[in-house]
Amino acid sequence: MSYNPKASPALTFHDARSAFLQNKDTPRDFLERCLDVIARREPTVRGWVTLNEKIARAAADEATQRYKSGRPLSMIDGMPVGIKDLIETKDMPTQMGSPAFAGSFPKRDSALVRALRDAGAVVLGKTVTTELGFLDPGPTTNPFDPRRTPGGSSSGSGAVVGAGMVPVAIGSQLVGSVLRPASFSGNWALKPTYGAINRGERLGFSQAHIGIHAGCAEDMWHTAMEIVLRAGGDPGHPGLYGEITPPPPMRPKRLVVLETEGWARVEEGARRAFDAMLSSLERESVKIIRRGDSAAVEALERSIAAGTELSLRIIAWEQRWSLANLVEQHPGTLGASLVRQVETGAALTLQDFREDLKQRNAARAALAALAGECDALVSLSAPGPAPIAEEIRSTKYPTGDVSFACVSSLLGAPSVNVPLLALDGLPLGVQVLGQQHQDAQATAIGRWMAETLMN
Amino acid sequence: MSYNPKASPALTFHDARSAFLQNKDTPRDFLERCLDVIARREPTVRGWVTLNEKIARAAADEATQRYKSGRPLSMIDGMPVGIKDLIETKDMPTQMGSPAFAGSFPKRDSALVRALRDAGAVVLGKTVTTELGFLDPGPTTNPFDPRRTPGGSSSGSGAVVGAGMVPVAIGSQLVGSVLRPASFSGNWALKPTYGAINRGERLGFSQAHIGIHAGCAEDMWHTAMEIVLRAGGDPGHPGLYGEITPPPPMRPKRLVVLETEGWARVEEGARRAFDAMLSSLERESVKIIRRGDSAAVEALERSIAAGTELSLRIIAWEQRWSLANLVEQHPGTLGASLVRQVETGAALTLQDFREDLKQRNAARAALAALAGECDALVSLSAPGPAPIAEEIRSTKYPTGDVSFACVSSLLGAPSVNVPLLALDGLPLGVQVLGQQHQDAQATAIGRWMAETLMN
Repeated sequence: MSYNPKASPALTFHDARSAFLQNKDTPRDFLERCLDVIARREPTVRGWVTLNEKIARAAADEATQRYKSGRPLSMIDGMPVGIKDLIETKDMPTQMGSPAFAGSFPKRDSALVRALRDAGAVVLGKTVTTELGFLDPGPTTNPFDPRRTPGGSSSGSGAVVGAGMVPVAIGSQLVGSVLRPASFSGNWALKPTYGAINRGERLGFSQAHIGIHAGCAEDMWHTAMEIVLRAGGDPGHPGLYGEITPPPPMRPKRLVVLETEGWARVEEGARRAFDAMLSSLERESVKIIRRGDSAAVEALERSIAAGTELSLRIIAWEQRWSLANLVEQHPGTLGASLVRQVETGAALTLQDFREDLKQRNAARAALAALAGECDALVSLSAPGPAPIAEEIRSTKYPTGDVSFACVSSLLGAPSVNVPLLALDGLPLGVQVLGQQHQDAQATAIGRWMAETLMN
Repeated sequence: MSYNPKASPALTFHDARSAFLQNKDTPRDFLERCLDVIARREPTVRGWVTLNEKIARAAADEATQRYKSGRPLSMIDGMPVGIKDLIETKDMPTQMGSPAFAGSFPKRDSALVRALRDAGAVVLGKTVTTELGFLDPGPTTNPFDPRRTPGGSSSGSGAVVGAGMVPVAIGSQLVGSVLRPASFSGNWALKPTYGAINRGERLGFSQAHIGIHAGCAEDMWHTAMEIVLRAGGDPGHPGLYGEITPPPPMRPKRLVVLETEGWARVEEGARRAFDAMLSSLERESVKIIRRGDSAAVEALERSIAAGTELSLRIIAWEQRWSLANLVEQHPGTLGASLVRQVETGAALTLQDFREDLKQRNAARAALAALAGECDALVSLSAPGPAPIAEEIRSTKYPTGDVSFACVSSLLGAPSVNVPLLALDGLPLGVQVLGQQHQDAQATAIGRWMAETLMN
């Protein structure tokens, strides 16, 4: 399977929905087609931990009846969806990619899962996560080349959407866990403003975000909004702003190019493809503002220059006690990257953490200072297409370089992965990053870029 | 047992500690004295759900050895402590006062419990909470009159400290759950700035705070600070500011009297006692600023005039999905007040919640606007001493009026209950409320008030 964004093979629910309303297709048939793709591709992709066909078929049948009677519950009624296995589901275990949680079955729905069911979505299964959503990989392979990483930590969610098994899967991002797998699997993805989609249990770290992987922008937006209308954002947060209708494509006047700390490691082909995209945007009369053009951009770049290490330290402090519990209760189960987090956390003091929060706040202020200078920021979502898994297995980032994707976590800002580029038949995403709470605008600009540059 | 703040019977660990260091007493003997009080008083007070004497004795013996070798781990090494049964402990079930969680045993320590153990504290048992920390009471009685409510939701934590069974117990406050029971049981208590003490699992609502009940200000402060140095505040929060050493008593120059929406319901005796206290403060040259004296105070009062209902609505939205899970999984187990929350939540929309957050933010801004006008605010912690439980059992607030205590939850501001007043042999607390992150200053002023007014 080779990737060509102009002839996207992505599965979309949005396009099928009108046929349901016209009685030409049904959610049950849609689900069966998904199950066919899963039967064919899952032995190689290995994106699912648990599949719940029986309950899914029953839910799809109910949705089918609702469309037949002309009363669908929502824009995602009948839509099959995969749930990252960090997120709790009442009818399937939540094992978090960790031997310490093998068989763990809390039997409750996380807020967003409840909201998805209330909206009529068909919760088909749990998707593979790296261990506890960190960096140590699971069995999933890249849908475009099984030798390559699917990215992480939302490895399964990225891959099952990229493989066309389901139109939408829910992921989460602490560092770079939504944007990176979306980039590697050719998905649309929304990593929203911090707090904008209710995280439910166990995802309470201050950079933990829920994210949506989808085959098209419409499904991505509908899913996010249907969840938020029912479950809100995190406690104390206002939740994703916008209408149910996806933000229509919007041509930006000015875009800032964000290099990020990953820029020095960008592959030659990726750089050329990105530069060509920027030139195309300029031909469409979009003003492109680069690092050298603006002191405010330079200040933002400096503030995020060590953003990945900063993020990993912040998380290490916040993980201290829960990882300490795990080490005590399930000794020897943690993978290399989590062991490193335990060590990092043990060396930190409260004062260190406070300094790190100050740095993070300064980076957020540097982004806010750009509000008057541009409509959004653009960057790659990764330094290149998905690397060969074996070649990075023993590195610090065994599911790929996180530095491009991490920026949006650190900044708490919305970022949309647009599956715009391809190199040697592999996808490479472009991210559109907005100001906090401007998720809709980032989506609108991403849609315009996809429409304009793919035609 | 009758209450007289000037001859406080409160158990303090702080005063015993120097004897440990001089080899005149030991943590093990201290614990045995606590167990004696428990044996005598628990049949009536009923403040404990679970007691773990065996593990506590082993921990006390270890602490004893550390003092003998002159190397205590912290200011609370060897201190027996009770843990509200909403908070997870690896060696005792966490049943949350709910039939739905009977026997539930997550076998992990919440952040603060881990921190307490790391500091050498003796985790003696779990204390009674109202159902899921809300309003439906458990079996606990008031330590000064068993016909009266101990307050809630930290009913057991308040009562076991008030009864002198342990020097410190950990509580939590969503609405008025730390200050109210502290007032009714004659305890010192700190309800810190929002986010200042790590809440760990399952306490993620945007008004959920950890609080400390103690027999003296020193134990209260040491416990808070020893926890925070090890476990920090909530993710993304800087944690309680201050030194290990308790803030020394500080005479305020100006105090604002906060009436709150509860003022109209204050009992006559309570009002007289509070007014007499204000007169005493004026004689000590503290300028007392009342509602009529300042437009900014009036603005704050107006912003919190419906603060309890506002808080209950905010919580109802945030509880929606977790209560919906419970209703589905354990039908018929919820008490009246939680059923009301389910109903309130079901009627709310995301837009309503956003409006409520705006109102809460406006109230917080109104408090911040007073920063230049006063050193702290003072109020009662309840409209009077603990009511007779039977007389309020069928009311909306079956563990007592929450309106005074709720203010600090709504504002996210630190509040210290000072056990200053007594009426008919029953305690009545005065709260000192500070600006966000000025927990130390509120404590310092509370200490000065106690020192000055009790002598």
